[in-house]
Amino acid sequence: MQEKNKTEIATLGEFGLIKHLTENIELKNPSTRYGIGDDAAVLEYPDRQILVTTDLLMEGVHFDLTYTPLKHLGYKSAMVNLSDIYAMNGTPRQITVSLAISKRFCVEDMEDFYTGLKLACDSHHVDIIGGDTTSSLTGLAISITCIGEADKDKIVYRNGAHETDLICVTGDLGAAYMGLQLLEREKKVFQGQQDINPDFSGKEYLLERQLKPEARRDIIERLHNMDIKPTAMMDISDGLSSELMHICTQSHVGCRIYEERIPLDYQTAVMAEELNMNVITCALNGGEDYELLFTIPITDHEKVAEIENIRIIGHITKPELGTALITRDGQEFELKAQGWNPLQKN
Amino acid sequence: MQEKNKTEIATLGEFGLIKHLTENIELKNPSTRYGIGDDAAVLEYPDRQILVTTDLLMEGVHFDLTYTPLKHLGYKSAMVNLSDIYAMNGTPRQITVSLAISKRFCVEDMEDFYTGLKLACDSHHVDIIGGDTTSSLTGLAISITCIGEADKDKIVYRNGAHETDLICVTGDLGAAYMGLQLLEREKKVFQGQQDINPDFSGKEYLLERQLKPEARRDIIERLHNMDIKPTAMMDISDGLSSELMHICTQSHVGCRIYEERIPLDYQTAVMAEELNMNVITCALNGGEDYELLFTIPITDHEKVAEIENIRIIGHITKPELGTALITRDGQEFELKAQGWNPLQKN
Repeated sequence: MQEKNKTEIATLGEFGLIKHLTENIELKNPSTRYGIGDDAAVLEYPDRQILVTTDLLMEGVHFDLTYTPLKHLGYKSAMVNLSDIYAMNGTPRQITVSLAISKRFCVEDMEDFYTGLKLACDSHHVDIIGGDTTSSLTGLAISITCIGEADKDKIVYRNGAHETDLICVTGDLGAAYMGLQLLEREKKVFQGQQDINPDFSGKEYLLERQLKPEARRDIIERLHNMDIKPTAMMDISDGLSSELMHICTQSHVGCRIYEERIPLDYQTAVMAEELNMNVITCALNGGEDYELLFTIPITDHEKVAEIENIRIIGHITKPELGTALITRDGQEFELKAQGWNPLQKN
Repeated sequence: MQEKNKTEIATLGEFGLIKHLTENIELKNPSTRYGIGDDAAVLEYPDRQILVTTDLLMEGVHFDLTYTPLKHLGYKSAMVNLSDIYAMNGTPRQITVSLAISKRFCVEDMEDFYTGLKLACDSHHVDIIGGDTTSSLTGLAISITCIGEADKDKIVYRNGAHETDLICVTGDLGAAYMGLQLLEREKKVFQGQQDINPDFSGKEYLLERQLKPEARRDIIERLHNMDIKPTAMMDISDGLSSELMHICTQSHVGCRIYEERIPLDYQTAVMAEELNMNVITCALNGGEDYELLFTIPITDHEKVAEIENIRIIGHITKPELGTALITRDGQEFELKAQGWNPLQKN
């Protein structure tokens, strides 16, 4: 493998680096009136409501550069924010990107990061409108804020689920978490060795789900075209259990979901088996799926059943019934949000 | 001194901590339709342009917790972002706040941070609408995004300065930098000692400028009331030289500023003397003043001359004349942006 060129960031300086990374950025959205280059960006949304979401990603906590290529990291950093805007039933339009970089990184590393970032933004027609680039004493820190738009009447909050509503999830769950387990396992196996080239064949989907998640614009568009407005919605970043409990708490309702209805990919099941883990636990608590969890009125049942990649996994109940998982053999368990909690005690 | 209570963050967890810190936040602005608690906040600005700015502050690079109380840090973190919105001739309305916290911090630390943050927001009628709270392996990272509004015709960019325009700065310069030098000196003196209680009497202004900067809303309001619209404007965060060069580059003009016109506080001059530094160099390159630098048409000269806390320091020239500082003895030097560059080689 040819060693790539390494240009020290100091040769460009802060302003030089920002200029270098952002000089070819084209603005695509009419709502972006002014992008990078002043004290603030300028936007205009005359007849729409504006959505704002933000994420802070820290090296060693949210990502491990041992096995995460910077291009993928850029892609994923943008995508997880776009996902939050779709989860409000909105359309992402702009992002700001702040990076704190340690001396370990070179200009080409940051180019890779921006390549991934731009790829995600381009495929969702999102403008990069600003940010901050500075230094860090230790790891890489990434902070992205995403701005989107929606019709006032279209925005879907977490608090609108009603009794008898159906609970739907998109895609399949647990694969990103299995991808992470796989990467962590290989990291341990190859620890200290050079020129690592592990064999991931048959497990590509798990890696893709972990390293290159896709925000579900397709589903939002499909629901819109079929005139279905969810009563509550959020994206699944911390795990199905945790998110479902957010919806139930904020909507003052309970829920029943069915183990056999939880969508799983074949590779997820195989990997869980291999690691001696319960695949349902992984699907419930794994996190980083970036699928959508939403509720719809029961009257929309037939319309939703037609849509590919949406699975009805249960229904909303009275709050007294709590949040329940019904297993294949008919037992009832209370859902727990074990969700991914980086502030938890070890 | 009584040791304050220390509650481990793990006892609350991520969601608990966010809830604890944000539960008493009241939304003050009609443009804030929905704040903390969903995938994204919801804003509405029907007839206005929207300004977006963001900053990422890293422990050890942007702040030193040895001498920066967390309450002040919260205050300053918000204020530096508000300053960017005022520098566009806008009004800040909302901020999102993301924090990455290491195990070293307790709940009470974060309360202190939020106390300062809220104080800054309250005094500028700004809503805290969201953010992210997560963990960090090492230091504290703070990312704030500020959203503001402005009339389309009122926004002032960096690129509008014209030949013969007058160059104005607010307040005085170099004091925040002197405050930093003072704190760094005392830190070295007291290194390793417990119960530090250095004597800062007579230097309070320098500390205040470093630890509790104020964004210049007063000036923006005053200019508005007197019907003066600057042709170019930015806030002074990296130092007067650096900012003036941004305005000149983006406006395709040159400038002449006069040493004797640069506003200095008495304490700044005394401290520079004490540290054997050139006070003008500190004022030109110190940074963190968060004063406003702007240009006005020469026809507004008399109006501006009436306003307290604004000093005319020079004028805009043809681009061929470069960016010049005229010293007290009439010598001409080219301005250099030594500005604060954290990515610079040591």
